[in-house]
Amino acid sequence: MDKNINKNGKIKIGLIGLGTVGSGVYKTLESFKNIEVVKIAVRNVNKKRNIPNLDESIITGDPYEVVNDPEIQIVVELIGGLNPAFDLIKTAIKNGKHIVTANKELLAKHGEELFTFAEEHNKVVLYEAAIAGGIPIIMPIKTILAGNKITRIEAILNGTTNYILTKMDMQGASYEQVLNEAQALGYAEADPTGDVEGFDAAYKITTLATLAFRKRIKIEDVYREGITKVRSEDMQAANDLGYKIKLIASAYLDEQGRADVRVHPMLVSKKSTLAHIDYVTNAVSLTGHPVGSVTLSGPGAGEFPTASSVVGDILAIAAELGTTDYLLPMMRCKHESDAEMIDILDTENKYYISINAQNNKGVIGTIGTICAQNDISLASIVQRCVSDDNTADITVITELVKEKNMRNAIKLIEQDGNKVNSLIRVQV
Amino acid sequence: MDKNINKNGKIKIGLIGLGTVGSGVYKTLESFKNIEVVKIAVRNVNKKRNIPNLDESIITGDPYEVVNDPEIQIVVELIGGLNPAFDLIKTAIKNGKHIVTANKELLAKHGEELFTFAEEHNKVVLYEAAIAGGIPIIMPIKTILAGNKITRIEAILNGTTNYILTKMDMQGASYEQVLNEAQALGYAEADPTGDVEGFDAAYKITTLATLAFRKRIKIEDVYREGITKVRSEDMQAANDLGYKIKLIASAYLDEQGRADVRVHPMLVSKKSTLAHIDYVTNAVSLTGHPVGSVTLSGPGAGEFPTASSVVGDILAIAAELGTTDYLLPMMRCKHESDAEMIDILDTENKYYISINAQNNKGVIGTIGTICAQNDISLASIVQRCVSDDNTADITVITELVKEKNMRNAIKLIEQDGNKVNSLIRVQV
Repeated sequence: MDKNINKNGKIKIGLIGLGTVGSGVYKTLESFKNIEVVKIAVRNVNKKRNIPNLDESIITGDPYEVVNDPEIQIVVELIGGLNPAFDLIKTAIKNGKHIVTANKELLAKHGEELFTFAEEHNKVVLYEAAIAGGIPIIMPIKTILAGNKITRIEAILNGTTNYILTKMDMQGASYEQVLNEAQALGYAEADPTGDVEGFDAAYKITTLATLAFRKRIKIEDVYREGITKVRSEDMQAANDLGYKIKLIASAYLDEQGRADVRVHPMLVSKKSTLAHIDYVTNAVSLTGHPVGSVTLSGPGAGEFPTASSVVGDILAIAAELGTTDYLLPMMRCKHESDAEMIDILDTENKYYISINAQNNKGVIGTIGTICAQNDISLASIVQRCVSDDNTADITVITELVKEKNMRNAIKLIEQDGNKVNSLIRVQV
Repeated sequence: MDKNINKNGKIKIGLIGLGTVGSGVYKTLESFKNIEVVKIAVRNVNKKRNIPNLDESIITGDPYEVVNDPEIQIVVELIGGLNPAFDLIKTAIKNGKHIVTANKELLAKHGEELFTFAEEHNKVVLYEAAIAGGIPIIMPIKTILAGNKITRIEAILNGTTNYILTKMDMQGASYEQVLNEAQALGYAEADPTGDVEGFDAAYKITTLATLAFRKRIKIEDVYREGITKVRSEDMQAANDLGYKIKLIASAYLDEQGRADVRVHPMLVSKKSTLAHIDYVTNAVSLTGHPVGSVTLSGPGAGEFPTASSVVGDILAIAAELGTTDYLLPMMRCKHESDAEMIDILDTENKYYISINAQNNKGVIGTIGTICAQNDISLASIVQRCVSDDNTADITVITELVKEKNMRNAIKLIEQDGNKVNSLIRVQV
């Protein structure tokens, strides 16, 4: 790494972005005597900011002033999105700067290109803040868990959707009702697509699984379902069966080394830690050998929690600046090879299915026959209530079943005149 | 650090102890091509061991052969206890070796002496495995959470007691009954004192709080109560009030920088993550700024989980051997100063109290008066059942109260002819 020591002996930082996280980083770094923020790029230089000790003279409207500043050793990118973030980071690396970023979309879509480019220039890209906010997860995987072969990740990586699902569960309210509340409170954006359709969680699990499996996962191979179709009736039924419904980002590596990476709602046993992760809290469960299973939970977003991770990465780089010309394991970010992926149709899952049967007579028999023909064993089948009009609400939990077979069975059950209200996978 | 590279380029390890954890470490290290275990000291060289690829020729009955072997770069101490472990480690350091240890008792009683000695010799002592087994906690505090001021730790650090309390809760069984079961299953030792009286948890919280607060905590200043007096009736009452009873190791740093470190049973709200940590699982909740609260949970003991932490520490040292003559932050272990401690009598707590009143007439009034005179506000008071013989069972939950005042009130309540069955602190 760089041997140049600055005139006043301080590590010089450039910030790109001074929104919620940027403000938290700036305030947190104030207490570190050996670190100095020397330039900050913002979109609107005239905006009033609630940062008491902010030195206005270091603010610029041009982020290239940050990445081209020869004095700066570490560039912290906090604007998100692909452009201009990608070009800014590459320019910074070319100019000899290390990178700390919270940009989950950029990492998921161009992580490998970025990491390779950084290694070619003997620079590092650290990204603890991009995954699960303040929870220490990236650095522990790189350091103290480095002796493990991790084969399973199950995580709650999106605070907005976890808030909505928690509220639906507590209040027995519908998705739309709670979304409106969440938007009013600022927990969900006006256009909530990125969160509620699972894109945000998919970005994060892509990068996390790539690191944990030491194989590149491509974002386009990640199966994704959001929470918009989860009904309060499903919440109730899940509770009765001993489960909570959570949006789980998961990644599994099978014995042949093939990866299965997804984001979708999942019934999680109340006995598992993830079932008790509520509101905007995030959590990551890792399973590997020799460690077994560990779960890390905490704030997945917010000014200060995210700043904790950004500052942790800055301190890790600062500790090594000028001391070694070698990248420590915790600094490395390139990965060995592409992962071979398992198609979602070839995965095996347990399923919760909620069916509204038009004619309750013989319907259990029909469902049973269709399932048997598609090699589907049932763990339980409950006819929850029958109304006067002859229809029936039926809740089914299956044993482990091929996704392909399950989808075929659903088609046949619907062709028989029944309505399948929900199909949600169950944690195994 | 050492610049000497071995003939075959491998990092040479010496193991002291080949019990449960040692076996796990040996088996795990087999898959690392750049690391070689060259000597292992055991108590009984003739013992049959279930390690398929064990090279018997490297086994010795004399641990000084390990610490005096000039080829060995890292000594892994896994025998526990003060002697001969302390002298062995000091000899190894004097001989230029780095140390990885799981010895919680030694760290709690002589940690500072050990860390100072190591720094004087420019060697490191890593101890991830000594606290909470496989859970990554020490290294994350030293690295990615290094930007935080941690002010609060609440943790379940002893698997045996958590197993007993979980079973008592699930089965409504007594402490003695479950202890016997646990002993039969190997979850508790024949002499369970170290676990059930809280010594093991006290060792661990001493070292953990010292690291997190960057101030030395002395083991003799840690307040300690075990679980032997927890009754199944208390478990039931706690459940009814929305709590679980856990043996919590806690450490708090107040605004004046004074520390309050303890181990005792505690009523923990069912809404908190710790309430759902069951059986032999351990967990650590840390609160600090800027991160907020994070909770890490997982296996607190066992062959492979503990090996994960030992191997993580070995890899951290191995990564730096020969690359730098400077100790990275994650390697440092000395602490700034002694902590100023708060005496348990001066702490403020909420309390759960279970009282058996000899005469139910007027007893609520008497308790209320005694509490008022001792500056104790009550959150709730429930007369749970009155039997034919005129006695009453009364459950009280207080607001925040000085320990000194609470103890005085208990004395007066007992002098009035009532029996105080339980006094358990409640999580705030």
